[in-house]
Parts: sequence; C-alpha cells; structure tokens
Amino acid sequence: MSKEITSREQDYAQWYNDLVIKGSLADYSAVRGCMVIKPYGFALWEKMRDQLDRMFKDTGHVNAYFPLFIPKSYLNKEAAHVEGFAKECAVVTHYRLKADPGGEGLIVDPEARLEEELIVRPTSETIIWSTYKTWIQSYRDLPLLINQWCNVVRWEMRTRLFLRTSEFLWQEGHTAHATSDEAVAEARQMLGVYADFAEKYMAVPVIRGLKTESERFAGAVDTYCIEALMQDGKALQAGTSHFLGQNFAKAFDVKFSDKENKLDYVWATSWGVSTRLVGALVMAHSDDDGLILPPRIAPLQVVIVPIYKGEEKKDLLNDRGRDLARQLKDAGISVQFDDNDNNRPGWKFAEYEKKGVPVRIALGLRDLENNSVEVARRDTKEKTTLSMDGLPKAITKLLATIQQAMYNKALAFRDDHITRVDTWEEFEKGLDGKAGFFAAHWDGTPETEAAIKDKTKATIRCIPLGNPPEEGKCILTGKPSSQRVLFARAY
Amino acid sequence: MSKEITSREQDYAQWYNDLVIKGSLADYSAVRGCMVIKPYGFALWEKMRDQLDRMFKDTGHVNAYFPLFIPKSYLNKEAAHVEGFAKECAVVTHYRLKADPGGEGLIVDPEARLEEELIVRPTSETIIWSTYKTWIQSYRDLPLLINQWCNVVRWEMRTRLFLRTSEFLWQEGHTAHATSDEAVAEARQMLGVYADFAEKYMAVPVIRGLKTESERFAGAVDTYCIEALMQDGKALQAGTSHFLGQNFAKAFDVKFSDKENKLDYVWATSWGVSTRLVGALVMAHSDDDGLILPPRIAPLQVVIVPIYKGEEKKDLLNDRGRDLARQLKDAGISVQFDDNDNNRPGWKFAEYEKKGVPVRIALGLRDLENNSVEVARRDTKEKTTLSMDGLPKAITKLLATIQQAMYNKALAFRDDHITRVDTWEEFEKGLDGKAGFFAAHWDGTPETEAAIKDKTKATIRCIPLGNPPEEGKCILTGKPSSQRVLFARAY
Repeated sequence: MSKEITSREQDYAQWYNDLVIKGSLADYSAVRGCMVIKPYGFALWEKMRDQLDRMFKDTGHVNAYFPLFIPKSYLNKEAAHVEGFAKECAVVTHYRLKADPGGEGLIVDPEARLEEELIVRPTSETIIWSTYKTWIQSYRDLPLLINQWCNVVRWEMRTRLFLRTSEFLWQEGHTAHATSDEAVAEARQMLGVYADFAEKYMAVPVIRGLKTESERFAGAVDTYCIEALMQDGKALQAGTSHFLGQNFAKAFDVKFSDKENKLDYVWATSWGVSTRLVGALVMAHSDDDGLILPPRIAPLQVVIVPIYKGEEKKDLLNDRGRDLARQLKDAGISVQFDDNDNNRPGWKFAEYEKKGVPVRIALGLRDLENNSVEVARRDTKEKTTLSMDGLPKAITKLLATIQQAMYNKALAFRDDHITRVDTWEEFEKGLDGKAGFFAAHWDGTPETEAAIKDKTKATIRCIPLGNPPEEGKCILTGKPSSQRVLFARAY
Repeated sequence: MSKEITSREQDYAQWYNDLVIKGSLADYSAVRGCMVIKPYGFALWEKMRDQLDRMFKDTGHVNAYFPLFIPKSYLNKEAAHVEGFAKECAVVTHYRLKADPGGEGLIVDPEARLEEELIVRPTSETIIWSTYKTWIQSYRDLPLLINQWCNVVRWEMRTRLFLRTSEFLWQEGHTAHATSDEAVAEARQMLGVYADFAEKYMAVPVIRGLKTESERFAGAVDTYCIEALMQDGKALQAGTSHFLGQNFAKAFDVKFSDKENKLDYVWATSWGVSTRLVGALVMAHSDDDGLILPPRIAPLQVVIVPIYKGEEKKDLLNDRGRDLARQLKDAGISVQFDDNDNNRPGWKFAEYEKKGVPVRIALGLRDLENNSVEVARRDTKEKTTLSMDGLPKAITKLLATIQQAMYNKALAFRDDHITRVDTWEEFEKGLDGKAGFFAAHWDGTPETEAAIKDKTKATIRCIPLGNPPEEGKCILTGKPSSQRVLFARAY
C-alpha cells in the first residue's frame, strides 16, 4: 500500500484528495475555489472531451462559442433561472485598475465602472437565446443543434477538486426545435449519449432517470440525469439533459413561423457534463494504491519499465524495450518506454500504479533470454508472463478485458448497493450501513422530499426511466405512492 | 459580384465585416466588444487549433488548465507586466446578486464584496508562475513545457470581429528552463512552429522578426513575432513568442537547484496565437465574392451540387452525387453533397463561394451521360471538366494545387509590397501609395520610433531575423543606423 495515500477506510475524503493531487491530476490554486488541472489530469479530460465531441458530432451537433459575460439584466429574464444562479455568480463591475495614489498597490479605477454589471457565465442559456432570436425566423432555421466547450463559474462556498469548484470546464449543448416532441426526443437522446459514454468509456454504470421538481435545473420543464454510485455508497450526478419547453424562447421572445406561416415560440433543450466526471471516475474505480483508469480513456495505456542490472546488456534492454513500444504504438496503443535512469524500477512501479496506468510491462535480462515479458494489470494486480511474439495483439485484448472487468466490477458493486426499503427504520438503518441507492415509496410532494433531506441528508436522485408502477406507502408520511424512487446521499 | 458584400475598393473595412458576418464566421453579441463565433467560424478555428495542437505536442508540449481569475495583487508583481495590462482588464468585485429591494431588477449584493478583487485573465504569466513555484525545486523538474487553450479578456475600446475583441480564444505556452540559452531556443522554436503553421496551413507568408523595445510584450526581455501582410497593404501581427528571462521567476520567487546544488532563478518563455488568426486568414485571401479558404484548414473542402431538371433522373443524380461524395470522403477529403431542394443551384453556388469552399463540383444530366463533372476552383474561379473515374485522386491533387497557388499568390503580393526607402519623402509617399512594408533605416531610439508613429501611424513591425547589417541614416533624424527595420501601418 502506498504510504503517500490515505486509505479509504481511514478517511475517504482525504483518500480522494490524495489521489487527485498525488496522481498528478490537479492542484489547488491561489484563487479560492479554483483548481489547476495538471498535464496528466488534462490529458485525461482531453480523452473524455474528444470522445464526447465525436459522439455529439455523430448525432448532428456542431460547436460554436458564445461570450463569457452575460449582462445582468439577461439573467433576470427567466424567473426560475435567476433564482437558481443569482446567489452564486462572479460579477464584473469595472474594466480598469490604476495605481493606488496612496500606496504601492493597484486599486479598481472608480471611473471605470460598467454601466451594467456583467456576470461571468454560470451557464449560457440567456446569452445563447438572446442570440438565437436573431438566428431563428422560420421552421427552415430549425433545428439548431449547437454545443459549446467552455469554462463556467459558480461561486461555491465549499469546494472539492473536480467535484465542486468555482470555475469548471464543461460542454453545454443548446438546441432549438419546432415541436415539443422533437425537443423531448433530443433531451432523451443526449441523456443516452451521456449514459453510453459513462458506461462504455468511463466503465461507470449509471441509472438514467428524471429529477423531481425540486432538483430540476433552474428554468427547465424536465431534467433528465444519469446517476452513478461511488465506492463510499454516495451517489454522484454525472450528467444532466434538460427539456426547457418554451421558457427561454418566451423570456427572449424567440418565435418562428411554421410551414403554415403561423408564429410560435421555439422549443429548447440544454445538456451538459463537466470536469466533475473526472472526480466520478476517480471515486468509482481507484484503490488505496492510487488511480485505476479504464483503458479507453487512460492518457497512457501501457508503460514498459526496463529492469537494468547495472550496465549489463543495458543497450539490448533499451533496444528491445523501444522496439516493443513501437510495435504497440503501431497497433494504436498509447505506450511509454520509461528508460529514466534516475529512478529505480520499484519507484516507477509505484508511480505508475498511483497514476492508474492500466498495464505495466517489465522487461529484464531473463526476459530477453526467454523472449517474454512480465505483464501486470493495474485493476486486479495480476501478473502474467507473455511471449514477445504477438505482444501487440495480446495487449490489445488485455486492454479490452480490463475495460470490461472494470465495468463489471463497478456494476456488481452498484447493483449490490440498490436496496428496496419499505419503512423509515429500514431506510435510516440502510443509510448508516452500506448505503447506496434506496428504492422507496414517496408521496410525491416537495415538502416530504425536503423533510427527508433535512432528517437524513439523502435526496431523491431520480425517478428511473421505465420505472414500473407499484402501489405503496411513503416511507415518511405513509401517504399513498404509485412508484418507488431512488434516494441516496450524494456528492 | 455578390450584392451582399461591399467591394474592397469601395470600403475595405466594411468588406471585411461583410465577409465575417455573411460568410457565417461570427456575429456581434449583446456584450460590448465580445463576439459570437458561429458554427462555421468555429469549425475553421477547430481546424486551426487541432493542427497547432499537434505541432505543439510534436515539439514535446503538454496541455494544462489554470484559473480564469487572477488575484489583483499578482498582476502587480511584475512591474512592466502590470503597466501593460492594468488599464484594460475586467475586474470581478462581488460574488452574488440579489433582488433589488426597491424594484424588479437585480442588484449586486453589497455584502458579497470580495476581500481581494479578481482580474479576468488577460494572459496567464502571473497565475502560472505562482503555480510553477510549487512545481519546480530542482533541475530535474525542468524543462516544463506547458500550453493552455483558453479564453482571455482585454478590455478594448475599439473592437473588430476576430481582429480585436474584448474576449478572445487563444493558446498560451508557458515554459520553464534551467538556462537562458535553452529558453531562447524554445522561444525561437515556437516562432518557427507559428511561421510553419501560417505558411503551410493558412497559406499566409510571414516575416519572422524581433520586436523593438517599445513593441515588446509587457514583461519580456525579447519578443519574437511573425508579421503578415493584408490585401490593403497593412501588416498584421499573427503570433508572438517571448523570451521572458528571469523576470517572472523573480517576481514569484521561483528558484531551482542545479546539478551542483546551486540555487538560481528559472528562465521562462511564453508564446501565443489567437482567434485573430481567423481575421488574418480572411483578409489575406478573400475577394469581393466572399471568403477564400485554403484547403488544409477549410472546414469543408469540396461541395457537390446536383443540377436537377425537375424530376428527370433526380434519383440517379442523387445516387451518383452521394456515391462521388463517399468516394471523396474515403480519400480523406471533407465533402458535402447538397441535395437541399429549397435552394436553386445558382443560390448554392453563391453561398459556397461566399463561404470560401475551395472546390465546387456540379453534376448535371449531361454529366451523367458523359461520366464527367464540372469542377470549379474557388481561388481562381477556373472551371474544368473531369472524368468521374479517378475523381478522388484528381481532387486530392487539385486541393494541393490550390493550397500552393494561394500561398504563391499571397507571397508574390507580399514581396511586391516590401519597399526599400531611403528618405522621409519616399517613406511618406510609399505609405500613401500601395503601402506594405518599408525597409528603412532608423536610429534605434524609442523616441524616433514614437515620432514616426505620431507622424504617419506606421510602426516598426519587426527587425527581421537574419537581417543583414547595413550602414545608413535614419529616415527621420538622419542619425547613423546599422540596419534596416520594417515599418508598416498595422492592424
């Protein structure tokens, strides 16, 4: 066990922080609540971003870029939206600094006050719909299927690396449609894209569902979400897709003329995932020795470490190591041959374990003789000896095996942590036990939802899509309920 | 000539704006000085960004992400730097809005005032070097070769789409080195990368040079630049690469221990190009009918337009058109088959001309009979008839021909607009004539440089790298000069 990393059992929150910082994903910054994403962490985000971007483009979306700043009055145009975001936004009030006449420092130049304050975007519905007004006149202009990759700011009081930071990176899709049905279909399609990405690339199983009214996005008619389960039994919302109805079209007066030349407000969706996914990935798979990254999004899939015995056959080891690396690279595997002389193999092993590199290949003098290598899986720590002949094919297969095994393990854990509870006692006992999701009856009112949250810190994560109807009684009030919903404590 | 677009002769500035807006690259936004980059413009930027990113990675750089906000006091740590940026920065002073107790609107909550104001980054040297302090202890930590793609804000009073906007997208490389020589070599290497990119991908010839002291980046020891020439004879700085010496290491106290365990300040570079390059591309190549984009970065390289005669053989035209598109796509060409029924071929031709698509293929009934297509080049407007057999190969070759021809044309124009002048009269006459670059003697003082700028609006664009020494007399003061420098009016 790595001494640098606090164990999960000892302190789960500290374990997470250790992984992020010592796994070289991110660092705290000098700015409150903002983080620095380090090169290794950013390479991971790039892999995730690029794959998502391909999936967005495959479903007909294009990228664009809208301003960072939002005029204060825009935020105010959609009532629920302003309620949701006004309390946590960074406000630009001035556009110039000047030397402090009474000191050595800089002060805000009082003469450079903006006529209208600008908000650093917490999300871009308002600025985008104010623009769509000029782009949409007729049904021929629809649908508009636009995505934006950018930074956003929500002034959080309690922050955690990746999971909740004042500035974060994300993508936000904003689409405009001629009919309600089409917009709902789009919102559901993008939820499917997110779920596919989480399961097939991040190896994180998710539950697709609908948020209750009180957990809905500020300004949405319906919020769809994917919910994942972390190793401590807490849930994490990994992505949301909103059917916005005509709320923003009405707020910004965006109408289109249909085929019969009749005017109507445009229907909208928005959907987003963020660097929060990195946090989800870390917490879903890693162990007390460090990160465990799924091969399909690992920045580095394979590392080859030569085991030198002094200078004996060092050149030969390097030649074979580089040759193997080239072979793997030609097979489309991302690989590094680590011939750094300053560090010993044991140090390197621990380092790559910490960074979660899926496969480690060790190459020693005996391997040269036997034409073999020692291959270690990061996820199970199993070691096997493989022939150098046909190595690329074997490693390709192994990477696929690891990807599937990681998913299966997370799925088994998740499924083992969905508990049906029928009484308040069972619910409370479960929450304080192994936790996870609790499928329970709820009377459907926001008041009961809030009361349950107050008592237990658990919230309704979602009403799963395709949830079977079932008569029952609310675990808190005993009032009638027509279906179970999923409760959990959550990040 | 397209009626929508003002001609260059009539109004060059309006021509540029027309191209950007009617070519669907960008739009004005509701926020002063900020633009909306539309999907077609963003696709162009993506092509440029992705190619640059490959070139950065090929030269050993990795990406990372640093906070959007910079504490006010950080900006103040490097004297020249603060001088350069304090006058044009967006300042965040508060972190919350609240309902106006006296009205319906929102006001800044006076109780949510930040202890220290935050600056929206105009460039990231300060926040990055404050972070490097924690990352660099020893020569083993060097070099650090990090790049960041992000948005930055400089509060400009007079803005123009792409060329000068308050918010823009860019990349900023920030590297740290153990020696001065290594840092200088890095700054020059990245200048070379920029020049290669401009010439080989944008088809824009550039002059590599060194800025004079007064045009240097705020905080740099030396600023290298590439300068391009626009069709109106004005120069445009297309990229800069700075040798920062130990200025930022000293400002943020970043020292490393060398192999002999001796402490020294770290040496630095920074380098950047921005969405301004899109403006340069537009102005370097386009004509009065619209954009002309070089094939290697055009979002769409080829469009195929079917010429229907009512319903006659429409299916056959569509089949052949789609088949040709598929063939071209398989050959790695980005292509669109435009079977949109709502628009006539003539309208489509004008539209793709306006958008600068390098090659247009028209496919009519007679072409089906002859097994041929009509191929039109956007750059020269030449039309030829090509056989459908072997079309992918012919089009691949044509795209390469267009790329080279566009570069050659821009190079000939540029070379024709470098004038050697030896007297003030020649200089003034030249500036009011066909303009361009003027190679002239200058006495080497900032005072003379400023006086020349006051009189003519022309500035010293650069001292070209490898400039031959030549004795002469300053065109303004008559004082001795040891080399010619390049003057021009500039964007």
